[in-house]
Amino acid sequence: MTLDQALSIFDEYQQKLWALSAASGIIYHDGNTVAPKKSAQARGRIIAALAEQSYGISTDKSFMEALEVIDCNKDKCDGAIVKSAYLYLKEARDMAKIPAEEYVEFSRHINESSAVWHEAKENSDFASFAPYLEKTVETLRRFASYTDPEKDVYDVCLDSYEKGLTTEKCEQFFGALKPVLKELISKVAAAKPVRTDFMKEHFPIDKQKALADYITELMGIDTDRFAIAETEHPYTTDASRYDVRIATHYYEDAFASALFSNIHENGHALYELGTGEEYAFTNLGGGVSMGIHESQSRFYENIIGRSYPFANLILPKLKELAPAQFRDVDGETLWKALCESKPSLIRTESDELTYTMHIIIRYELENLLMHGELTVDKLPEEWNRRYKEYLGVDVPDDKHGVLQDSHWSGGSIGYFPSYALGSAYGAQLLCKMKESVNVEQCIEKGDFAPINNWLEQNIWRHGRRYDPNELLTMACKQEFTPDYFIDYLTEKYTKIYNL
Amino acid sequence: MTLDQALSIFDEYQQKLWALSAASGIIYHDGNTVAPKKSAQARGRIIAALAEQSYGISTDKSFMEALEVIDCNKDKCDGAIVKSAYLYLKEARDMAKIPAEEYVEFSRHINESSAVWHEAKENSDFASFAPYLEKTVETLRRFASYTDPEKDVYDVCLDSYEKGLTTEKCEQFFGALKPVLKELISKVAAAKPVRTDFMKEHFPIDKQKALADYITELMGIDTDRFAIAETEHPYTTDASRYDVRIATHYYEDAFASALFSNIHENGHALYELGTGEEYAFTNLGGGVSMGIHESQSRFYENIIGRSYPFANLILPKLKELAPAQFRDVDGETLWKALCESKPSLIRTESDELTYTMHIIIRYELENLLMHGELTVDKLPEEWNRRYKEYLGVDVPDDKHGVLQDSHWSGGSIGYFPSYALGSAYGAQLLCKMKESVNVEQCIEKGDFAPINNWLEQNIWRHGRRYDPNELLTMACKQEFTPDYFIDYLTEKYTKIYNL
Repeated sequence: MTLDQALSIFDEYQQKLWALSAASGIIYHDGNTVAPKKSAQARGRIIAALAEQSYGISTDKSFMEALEVIDCNKDKCDGAIVKSAYLYLKEARDMAKIPAEEYVEFSRHINESSAVWHEAKENSDFASFAPYLEKTVETLRRFASYTDPEKDVYDVCLDSYEKGLTTEKCEQFFGALKPVLKELISKVAAAKPVRTDFMKEHFPIDKQKALADYITELMGIDTDRFAIAETEHPYTTDASRYDVRIATHYYEDAFASALFSNIHENGHALYELGTGEEYAFTNLGGGVSMGIHESQSRFYENIIGRSYPFANLILPKLKELAPAQFRDVDGETLWKALCESKPSLIRTESDELTYTMHIIIRYELENLLMHGELTVDKLPEEWNRRYKEYLGVDVPDDKHGVLQDSHWSGGSIGYFPSYALGSAYGAQLLCKMKESVNVEQCIEKGDFAPINNWLEQNIWRHGRRYDPNELLTMACKQEFTPDYFIDYLTEKYTKIYNL
Repeated sequence: MTLDQALSIFDEYQQKLWALSAASGIIYHDGNTVAPKKSAQARGRIIAALAEQSYGISTDKSFMEALEVIDCNKDKCDGAIVKSAYLYLKEARDMAKIPAEEYVEFSRHINESSAVWHEAKENSDFASFAPYLEKTVETLRRFASYTDPEKDVYDVCLDSYEKGLTTEKCEQFFGALKPVLKELISKVAAAKPVRTDFMKEHFPIDKQKALADYITELMGIDTDRFAIAETEHPYTTDASRYDVRIATHYYEDAFASALFSNIHENGHALYELGTGEEYAFTNLGGGVSMGIHESQSRFYENIIGRSYPFANLILPKLKELAPAQFRDVDGETLWKALCESKPSLIRTESDELTYTMHIIIRYELENLLMHGELTVDKLPEEWNRRYKEYLGVDVPDDKHGVLQDSHWSGGSIGYFPSYALGSAYGAQLLCKMKESVNVEQCIEKGDFAPINNWLEQNIWRHGRRYDPNELLTMACKQEFTPDYFIDYLTEKYTKIYNL
């Protein structure tokens, strides 16, 4: 096969793979938002058939050969194509190392594990879920021994969600953060609480939707390529940079929940919408990693959305939509209420300060689990002990404890750290951005174009062209460090609670 | 290949083909209802890739061989499987007779033709569209000469939408109808108009949606397998009997438009929802033909929805949702208003009586076109002449005349007659149904279960197992005849207008 033939086959197959994956994405989104209840089983058949077609294409001999030819002619090809081919090749090579029957068995197991976890969470019955988690841990260890026998098992897990992330880097990151968080959390607990009485008043859903539209326009989202749907658990999905959807949830008595879901998912959406046109319909289109994606969503949600100027910016709109609720609320009061920190049981409902502590607990436990230093049966005990020690809260049952998240039941071990990394990436990006953008003034004026332009230029447009650590280093002209995030949190919470 | 092998391959491939077609359907529906505006081009790529995968599967050698083996062993196989395999085989054989490059060229042409038609309609500029229609006619004639050289060209067109339908049958059908319609239409024109002043009042969209929910519940639709969306032009689509969607449109000042769209599409939906479980995920799942499908939607829309007891049944709900509008309206007044007949220019906005006349005009013209007895350039003239003669209306321009429908621009010649057939099938089914079901009493009580049970038993559950004429004959214990429809219309309009 000549290089020209290889490039032409590569292009053809890549477009097919993109299309099948985009099809699955749309069908998944439809299923989560508007499809009838009893369509689930039929949808399962459709998604499975699309996956089978994708598998057939991605393992096709000519495609494999084309990938190898491109990989052997790196210097003669465009860098983006080399990267794109490498990503397929890496996946195919890893896949080839896992015996097909074991892979199929694991998919079956994960499907069952998810169903058992749902039930177990409902009944707060960890014992019924434990054997499934044991099997997941054992299988992931075995798979790591196939694909990367020389690497640490947990490093393999981390790397699969955030390329280049290792246990060592996590230790440095969380090691630096943990004592600072502990101190800040205990100081906040001792400080005078902020005023929040107006936060839980009835805010009609149609007014919340009007607020979401206002926020979406404010954030400069191209609504010709974007749509908002409703679902149980908020998320963002994209078929391409021309078709990005978010799904959110509205609670009548907690307007801030939908407001920040909206800002967060819009942050993800901006990233997808801003990926380079030249990467559309290829595997380089879309965000590069969980960590970088969370850095964008959390940048908007926390750094911008929970800033003093942002509270001032949106207050008039809140007063317009719910006059009685915000009658005697000023910008500073709103800001502090939006940033209120209070140790709690549930990660997804926690605040910006305590959030990372929830992640640290999960990181420590999955690290121990994967290294065989903790057995699954001891997990609830260790979970509860840490919640008491790090956050000062008593876990009443496993439903509100170790069973709260779906990640482990779905086979995602090594995923949690990327959430915290995202927050820290965001703080570092902010610092670099401030060298050329007057961020505070932009927020005050509600003019997000300079911020979006900076992010588009430095992060979004690159899609998956660079690995996350490369990308961050390019954007910040510096390697990743948790220092910015530590400074950011310390300064912010010292100010809010007069520590 | 043994028969067992053939059956197993057939099953596997059929499931894939179902899944890919269902995927396209969901993506199409998503695109028509909630997808962002600029996603169209990306969606085009996805749909094309799915079609390519389907094509690959349906023309795969093992699949073809399996189909032939089943076809040669008809007597040893289940009748449903024989039929299912035959449908694939017929399509593949027809396809094989058309040179691939001509087929691709025709797809390209139709794509362009649709775009040109949109523009031409907007500008009422038939001349720009004419060469495209000429090419369509010429290509369809050529394709018919490849697939069925012994058959009449227009018969081939008709048969592709309603299996078994021929020009001869159309002549008998429309020949019997036309004079009756002409007479009724002219009598109605001379009669005292019915009262309709309350029909165009403002009926808020959210109240119209509440009405749609009420109608959907009344019709006994399983809403766990059904969903309503909004779009420009109403339609029904199904991924399987477990996932049926309708899309409708609401006009603030014309509640009856959405009401009857809803009843009509719900009629299609009931058919899809009622197809046999044993045919789900196969090519026998779903309605058998355009004509039978329209018989179900029009049965509900016209025979039930525009009946005197139905007007009485829904009047209290209308009074509840829009009290001022219906304050001085009684059941009979509402019924007559819902059935008002008035010759008009636009088929989709026409009433039950004049509708078939719009179809007759299209049937006569496409019949002449396909037989070379009319040239495309003479089409507007002949269109306008017939509208004047049959309906008494003057066509002001081609936008409101020959360019109004999308069918011909999309290559669908031979499709129109099935609409009218559907109405006539419905009247014949009604007559048979009345032998065992007290239809009037069911409507009065709002209890549609006996009606739905009869339709499910005699029509719905059979899916594509039987050809449309077989199915109708089985259901009615009699061959198709237009007599019932003629009697139905005559009786109904004589009563409404005291003719």
